[in-house]
Amino acid sequence: MDRTVDWADGAVVIIDQVALPGRYRTCRLRTVDELVDAIRRLAVRGAPALGAAGALGVALAAFAGGDVRAEAERVAAARPTAVNLRWGVTQALGRLDAGPEAVLALGQAMLDEDERICRTASGHAAEVVLRSCARRPLRLLSHCNTGHLAAVAWGTALGVVWHLRERGLVESVLVNETRPLLQGSRLTAWELAMAGVPYRVQADGAAAFAMARGLVDCVLVGADRIAANGDVANKIGTYGLALAAAHHRVPFVVVAPESTVDESIATGAGIVIEERSATELTELHGRPVAPAGAPAFNPAFDVTPAELITAVVTEHGVLAR
Amino acid sequence: MDRTVDWADGAVVIIDQVALPGRYRTCRLRTVDELVDAIRRLAVRGAPALGAAGALGVALAAFAGGDVRAEAERVAAARPTAVNLRWGVTQALGRLDAGPEAVLALGQAMLDEDERICRTASGHAAEVVLRSCARRPLRLLSHCNTGHLAAVAWGTALGVVWHLRERGLVESVLVNETRPLLQGSRLTAWELAMAGVPYRVQADGAAAFAMARGLVDCVLVGADRIAANGDVANKIGTYGLALAAAHHRVPFVVVAPESTVDESIATGAGIVIEERSATELTELHGRPVAPAGAPAFNPAFDVTPAELITAVVTEHGVLAR
Repeated sequence: MDRTVDWADGAVVIIDQVALPGRYRTCRLRTVDELVDAIRRLAVRGAPALGAAGALGVALAAFAGGDVRAEAERVAAARPTAVNLRWGVTQALGRLDAGPEAVLALGQAMLDEDERICRTASGHAAEVVLRSCARRPLRLLSHCNTGHLAAVAWGTALGVVWHLRERGLVESVLVNETRPLLQGSRLTAWELAMAGVPYRVQADGAAAFAMARGLVDCVLVGADRIAANGDVANKIGTYGLALAAAHHRVPFVVVAPESTVDESIATGAGIVIEERSATELTELHGRPVAPAGAPAFNPAFDVTPAELITAVVTEHGVLAR
Repeated sequence: MDRTVDWADGAVVIIDQVALPGRYRTCRLRTVDELVDAIRRLAVRGAPALGAAGALGVALAAFAGGDVRAEAERVAAARPTAVNLRWGVTQALGRLDAGPEAVLALGQAMLDEDERICRTASGHAAEVVLRSCARRPLRLLSHCNTGHLAAVAWGTALGVVWHLRERGLVESVLVNETRPLLQGSRLTAWELAMAGVPYRVQADGAAAFAMARGLVDCVLVGADRIAANGDVANKIGTYGLALAAAHHRVPFVVVAPESTVDESIATGAGIVIEERSATELTELHGRPVAPAGAPAFNPAFDVTPAELITAVVTEHGVLAR
């Protein structure tokens, strides 16, 4: 598989995640406008992937000339909750004085580094899962997409599945479809099918019942921003999943790169939550599934308090708090 | 609005709930085959509506002649979790010896009775809600569809909104879209829009976050089967919602006709849960949203233990347990 985000011939090249699972294709993004649009449409998404995309966006702006810092700010602001996006932009801006090639070199190093970080973080998390769960092989539950497609390669929480699977320790994965944009059924199921890992898709509302029926040994999720106290902002639905897991004493493990930790924010209450368009809920494939003009409450993320989380694991191991 | 289920000129007439909210139309069901198909497709659904539909199905079979009991059994078995369906069929079979007209008269009486039962049960529930919540006006949360369209008229849990609204006590309703078949965004939102009640649709996964943000004063749900100990089988997602409500001390009120109580089942563990087709999750409007052939875990219902429920309210008042 291609890298989720890459650089080739003066453009950012992404796997178009809106086209999956129907069609696998890559898109060349030649301008900051095209990149910002791709980020907003979630054609590229996932915390680690957004970090690299942010840095490469600054490279695009630097080669184009003009007000590079203003252009970089547009990239960083394309999605407000994803701390990695701004982190990638900020890292790249630090090289701006050395010229466009230096910015690009940093972005490309970030691509290489991301896979290493993801493999390391998910490897540590696999050990946490094995220590937390007695059953072998394991039945895991995944929310949203935290695999190859959420990173440059390999993935975060779903990376745990790849590690455990290499050791023959995965029985199956329950895949929350993850409304509204179905990154679970569209992307995670696709990755699992490609890898030959047994899985079943379920409605997000079925997760608590699956736990009550004893079908889940461990929940694995990613993170979009982690506050200093360990509270985690992640895809909408994560918080309810964590409440159900706590009730059923199912371990709940968060896997993310260290760059997701935002020490400037004391607790989850300080995390800005992106609200997205009502049409993500009220239309499917362009056809209405709600009355015309139906208003919606459509937060893209929620906040899970640290006390509901078994462990937050990064490339440095379990996050102390 | 028409009755959700009715009888006219030798046929069962239903509002086609699969066509909503795009199109309002009624369907004439002339045979048991057509009725069973409509029940399976959820063109008619909702516990009270299914009771009446079951009785009228026996009338269809009785007028057609042949093995009426075998035909009645096909109607009763069309959906396994909905106790009201079998209840309606059984009631109607009790009149079979008196001839088809007697069966039909019972079915028609059931139609009249349903609206009275729904108004009474939801009226009692409105008092429970007012006793349980201090805030005025109220911000209510609804799961699935429990309104006019779930009954012959008026509705169960959503009937509480109609009662409270007449008294100016409703600020707004948060509508869980209710995957996989979106009865919340398609049907409940449509009913609220028709009635002019302020509402917002949300992903099912957003409900716990809405509670954490203090946006919900009370959760109102229906029931498809209630065990003798007060455990409630209801639309998938109800259990997770109840866990979140309990965590946030948000009152959780179940409204259903007394016929939903199945004294023959001691606890929720004994309730058979219908599993439905994977395509309800893997396709939207006929287009795939998961890899081809993706398997699914698709229970239509879950079970909420009595201890998570503030009150189960029927036409006789709060259910004692």
